[in-house]
Amino acid sequence: MLTLYYAPRTCALASHIALERAAAAYRAERIDFATNQQRSPEYLKLNPKGRVPTLVTPQGILTETPAILLYVAQTHPQAGLAPLDDPFALAQLNAFASYLCSTVHVAHAHKARAARWADDEAAQAAMKAKVARNMTDCFELIERDMLRGPWVMGERWSFADPYLYTIARWLEGDGVDVARLPKVAEHRRRMAADPAVQRVLAAQGITD
Amino acid sequence: MLTLYYAPRTCALASHIALERAAAAYRAERIDFATNQQRSPEYLKLNPKGRVPTLVTPQGILTETPAILLYVAQTHPQAGLAPLDDPFALAQLNAFASYLCSTVHVAHAHKARAARWADDEAAQAAMKAKVARNMTDCFELIERDMLRGPWVMGERWSFADPYLYTIARWLEGDGVDVARLPKVAEHRRRMAADPAVQRVLAAQGITD
Repeated sequence: MLTLYYAPRTCALASHIALERAAAAYRAERIDFATNQQRSPEYLKLNPKGRVPTLVTPQGILTETPAILLYVAQTHPQAGLAPLDDPFALAQLNAFASYLCSTVHVAHAHKARAARWADDEAAQAAMKAKVARNMTDCFELIERDMLRGPWVMGERWSFADPYLYTIARWLEGDGVDVARLPKVAEHRRRMAADPAVQRVLAAQGITD
Repeated sequence: MLTLYYAPRTCALASHIALERAAAAYRAERIDFATNQQRSPEYLKLNPKGRVPTLVTPQGILTETPAILLYVAQTHPQAGLAPLDDPFALAQLNAFASYLCSTVHVAHAHKARAARWADDEAAQAAMKAKVARNMTDCFELIERDMLRGPWVMGERWSFADPYLYTIARWLEGDGVDVARLPKVAEHRRRMAADPAVQRVLAAQGITD
């Protein structure tokens, strides 16, 4: 049995959808960011970074979305979450996940988490002011050069799909004009129609 | 034949060392950041992100350090760069790489690349002012909870080692007191004594 610790509206949604699509034996445990539960002594014992997602496995604890996604893919090979027998195709998939975590998620985080990188309030406001432009730049690159269609990596669904979907859900809130991103918008609609995605959103209590 | 595009003193060093340790058939091609060659039309055709590293393979182009490192490991299994037959151990290794790219490298980048996240000069100065503290926090976590010793993942060398070494080389420049990080310092000395690392530093023209 696996246990996924998540909070709604975070990148943990990607791992949650991957587990559901893999028909994994798992349970999902909510961490309440409103009461700062991710910084509680109990949770820090699981994940000293104080972030989500955390995946508790029979062998130990895993963190970091790209690592969790590949782990779920490798331990549930029948689910086809990754091209496990093709190192180059797998590397392209991992590169996409790495771009999301190191560049796109980081660009987004400068809105609500600007205090991580500067203490000064005016500086935090200046960071927030650039989020829409940076997220637009990232997603224009995804639209033009990365999202092959109908799925991220082409004809085959992969763990890049829930990860892109998760971050693309933040676009309106980040001030990005989604009408300029027709492939991304179509991908989001396609994902939202997936019963596994709908089950996960319902389990997290997300209704929009 | 593989071609690695790199610039000195960037995270491309990790992929360069991994290729050298794997005894891969590769050549290394320098990109001159001083003349902004990473934004030249020729280079942007290879890597539209305008960053390094880029690895040109017979099957196509790869970017993003964690993806390149795992690709080199999978295509050179005899080199032992990753526990390829153990999904959990591999996930722990990937999680380490993901933490470096999405949190630690990002913390460092707020010194020289603060303009990515705010246009205002005072805001950029406020970001730079917090780099030493953030890098100290990251490396205290690595020292306490992640670096098992003698190598990052324990007794076996892995691609986490050149990646950690690459970023740990930035610590003094980032204002971090390395004397408070004895395990990280010892790891760096151990890496610096590796003939493969010495060959790569010489090839990049790095003498310190």
